[in-house]
Amino acid sequence: MKIQNSVDGAALDNMDKVHRTNLVNSLSGYKSVNLLGTMDAQRNTNLSLVSSAFHVGANPPLMGMLMRPHSVPRHSLENLLEQGWYTLNAVTKILFKQAHQTSARYPRDVSEFDATGLTAVFSPEVSAPYVEQSPIQIGLKLLETQTLKVNDTVLVIGEVKQIRLGEGILGVDGQLDLNLASAVAVSGLDEYHLPQALERLSYPKP
Amino acid sequence: MKIQNSVDGAALDNMDKVHRTNLVNSLSGYKSVNLLGTMDAQRNTNLSLVSSAFHVGANPPLMGMLMRPHSVPRHSLENLLEQGWYTLNAVTKILFKQAHQTSARYPRDVSEFDATGLTAVFSPEVSAPYVEQSPIQIGLKLLETQTLKVNDTVLVIGEVKQIRLGEGILGVDGQLDLNLASAVAVSGLDEYHLPQALERLSYPKP
Repeated sequence: MKIQNSVDGAALDNMDKVHRTNLVNSLSGYKSVNLLGTMDAQRNTNLSLVSSAFHVGANPPLMGMLMRPHSVPRHSLENLLEQGWYTLNAVTKILFKQAHQTSARYPRDVSEFDATGLTAVFSPEVSAPYVEQSPIQIGLKLLETQTLKVNDTVLVIGEVKQIRLGEGILGVDGQLDLNLASAVAVSGLDEYHLPQALERLSYPKP
Repeated sequence: MKIQNSVDGAALDNMDKVHRTNLVNSLSGYKSVNLLGTMDAQRNTNLSLVSSAFHVGANPPLMGMLMRPHSVPRHSLENLLEQGWYTLNAVTKILFKQAHQTSARYPRDVSEFDATGLTAVFSPEVSAPYVEQSPIQIGLKLLETQTLKVNDTVLVIGEVKQIRLGEGILGVDGQLDLNLASAVAVSGLDEYHLPQALERLSYPKP
């Protein structure tokens, strides 16, 4: 591979904010896109976009996400800390524009569900709203939060307590069909992509 | 959305291991795929597949990843803890089979570079091998590790100290062109996908 650009640490430090934000946000590669559903004690719902959800472990079934306390999703963070429950809902090809719009700075008394035309739906087992339009709806119970010393980001870890799936999404071996779900991925802050399967590989042996 | 399957916590607990692993690993959505390059004090190189790399912050430029101390990448973890440096290298459409193969349980004295036909390349600034064939090569200095109490997974946080990019990958506004790089994404443990751009959206306003 011929290297065209080599950016060192000093060049990164001196880069203007927009360039650095775009560059560093796209370094890790494609990111999953989920809508985080929460509510407060008065059952006012809140919805925010999360591109930081990740797998932590299968047994017990755990997921993590990173949240910045000083950015828009702070209402979500307050709600999930207070209520101890939240949902993650896969964003699809037909939902990504509405999902992106949930990141706008709405006043606290406006629910992003109403503002973006998405529908909150509830299950008796989970004290947080699901997104009715999403084919992969995950209900989580808050397990632990840690503030990362490096930049005061909050790592949120939850245990999966319910999974609700649209037609055909659950494969015979447990794998979800993300292509059939039309789930999207994001690069950087704002570029949405639709992945298509290349191949499923078998367990590698030396 | 008509819900076809609803899996609750007890059903997850009682699920056989293969089904649960496939299901829970595919819950978060598409994951990025990177090759983690490390070396030991004798400059023996090691390469392992990481689908857990994520953005932590842009200023300072930080990335995180989760590693299981008891699974294959422990050589990588030992190396990066000892040396304090590692690289992440984007996996592409032409590299994903070799990249997947690095997960095989090779003996300690076998470098996954040699075993899979990938080439280690070095930069004076970074004490870890890059993957020559990758169009996005990131050099990181270890900043912090934390063991998550919930399941003894190790959270590794590093600071980006060098970025090496193939021709045309760096956009005019700093965003990387992951489509041009032919970067892949993975769902579950073993299903590789090629994303294609849908649209780049502007900053949302209420």
